[in-house]
Amino acid sequence: MTVTHSATEAGETPSLTPLIDMLSADMAGVNATIIDRMASEVPLIPQLAGHLIASGGKRMRPMMTVAGAMLGSDDAGKRAPAVKLATAVEFIHSATLLHDDVIDESKLRRGQDTANALWGNDASVLVGDFLFARAFELMVEAGDITVLGRLAAAAARITEGEIKQMAITGQPDTPVEDYFDVIGGKTAVLFSASAAAGIEITGAPAERVEAMRVYGMELGMAFQIMDDALDYTASAEQMGKNAGDDFADQKITLPTILAWQDGDAEERAFWQRTLGEADFAEGDLERAQALLTAHDAVNRSVTVAHEHAVKAGAALAPFIGDERTAPLARALADAALFAAHRAS
Amino acid sequence: MTVTHSATEAGETPSLTPLIDMLSADMAGVNATIIDRMASEVPLIPQLAGHLIASGGKRMRPMMTVAGAMLGSDDAGKRAPAVKLATAVEFIHSATLLHDDVIDESKLRRGQDTANALWGNDASVLVGDFLFARAFELMVEAGDITVLGRLAAAAARITEGEIKQMAITGQPDTPVEDYFDVIGGKTAVLFSASAAAGIEITGAPAERVEAMRVYGMELGMAFQIMDDALDYTASAEQMGKNAGDDFADQKITLPTILAWQDGDAEERAFWQRTLGEADFAEGDLERAQALLTAHDAVNRSVTVAHEHAVKAGAALAPFIGDERTAPLARALADAALFAAHRAS
Repeated sequence: MTVTHSATEAGETPSLTPLIDMLSADMAGVNATIIDRMASEVPLIPQLAGHLIASGGKRMRPMMTVAGAMLGSDDAGKRAPAVKLATAVEFIHSATLLHDDVIDESKLRRGQDTANALWGNDASVLVGDFLFARAFELMVEAGDITVLGRLAAAAARITEGEIKQMAITGQPDTPVEDYFDVIGGKTAVLFSASAAAGIEITGAPAERVEAMRVYGMELGMAFQIMDDALDYTASAEQMGKNAGDDFADQKITLPTILAWQDGDAEERAFWQRTLGEADFAEGDLERAQALLTAHDAVNRSVTVAHEHAVKAGAALAPFIGDERTAPLARALADAALFAAHRAS
Repeated sequence: MTVTHSATEAGETPSLTPLIDMLSADMAGVNATIIDRMASEVPLIPQLAGHLIASGGKRMRPMMTVAGAMLGSDDAGKRAPAVKLATAVEFIHSATLLHDDVIDESKLRRGQDTANALWGNDASVLVGDFLFARAFELMVEAGDITVLGRLAAAAARITEGEIKQMAITGQPDTPVEDYFDVIGGKTAVLFSASAAAGIEITGAPAERVEAMRVYGMELGMAFQIMDDALDYTASAEQMGKNAGDDFADQKITLPTILAWQDGDAEERAFWQRTLGEADFAEGDLERAQALLTAHDAVNRSVTVAHEHAVKAGAALAPFIGDERTAPLARALADAALFAAHRAS
């Protein structure tokens, strides 16, 4: 099946801008709801949550929900509950970020001090719990228990993915399938459920809900693989986090798995000492980067991400074939290619 | 309004046993569901969750749900979804315990090593998140979005209560109203929502749902006040946790508030140095206990707990006045008195 991407057609660099423009009216509602619903009589909650949420992620997950709803219906009334779902999705994501920063003992995220660095781990754990609970309140208000079940299942799978990630941490010989399983759970499932929930709540047919589920899943895979690849190439300024964080945290990601698989005994001993045993010395990050370059591991990871982005676009075929939904579907396909294009 | 308690009628020590006996059949279903639904392909989840859940709390919260359902209906079919809700309630409670132990850096709970002491903070944060998400999956299966909303709101209020508790930590001059606000959120709201959810899902009339909501709220207040009072009197063996934990954690509880209010300048300086500034010296816990005794602060706290227990029983009047529900209602009233009787 051939899918037409507007960017690839024109041979241009894919961009997120068309999608952002098409979603801007509904996303304004989401942003207002985010501010409104992080309110609490307990001042620390809006302070801490606001620090994280205002620090400016791209809001990719709520954009998935809003886009799904627009593909599902032109009727703003039918799309209204999707604004609450989109807010819920951002709160779930924010809760996992707060807890991740506690777990990783991160001090920097998106170029700013992390909440745990500023307010302590205790506050980050509890405000994460609050956002998680508030997310479910919002889903209840959206009023569709099937959609709620989809997002609740996603939330459970996120934590399973994170726990699996803990299990492979420090295991440089991790099979690539285990890595895909981890990022499928910890990242792609929420993209997927976000996209599917948005269209499902408008009452769209099951095959269109499924198309958005697959789109979100493939986009999420592309997104996380790119994130992991960039960790070894970008500067702290570009990434908004500390470069080489994953290395220091003994995280096993696609580039390190590829370099391990292709490495000789001496190289594997290096990965085992560093990623395996956290026995780090001056210059180890540079050595790791040199080995990744020698095995073309970052570029090969970007290629895998790109393949997922193409699959994401292909999943949108039912919407590309429908005049009403084609422009937005093309923008979504471009957004997927954009996600896999950042460093290539 | 006069309420008849079977224990007080007979002038006996109140007991939990009649309630446990009456609920045993339905609680067997809850226990089986707990085991079944903490399963995961990720081995750490059942290991860690099982360690906590098998370590034998009294399952007071799921008992509230099951009791509510029995008050609502004699029809086992109508009560079936309450088993899922009861399991969800226990999972929410377990998630908060896992996160609390991380926050308090506790090493001992119910006489056993805490999960964070055995598996680390990372695992406790994530498995707590998993249990929380799984709880919502169970509520979705129970199928009533109104009940789900009640429990989601309770979950948000629990974390607000915990965050407020952080805010008063180390403030020995905390007003007693702030303490009641904290324990209302962190403890009583879940008892309350558990009890109300159980009867609500059977389709019982609103005033009976409200009666159980009030019962659970008052019981929860009694329960937490007793827990706080016993922290200064019981041995580690009796409590299953470290005696004086609250003191070392600078927690402000009803006994310390009463002792502060009645203390002279020298005594307040002691509370300020210890609870306020965490500047602890040998013999400080003994001094704190002596001051509490001098001001009768533990006994007065137990009296406050007892007043809440009496109010809990009084809330059950609609069930006491109904022949079908009277025996169980009396057992619930006894359970409330039992909760406020442990140390008196």
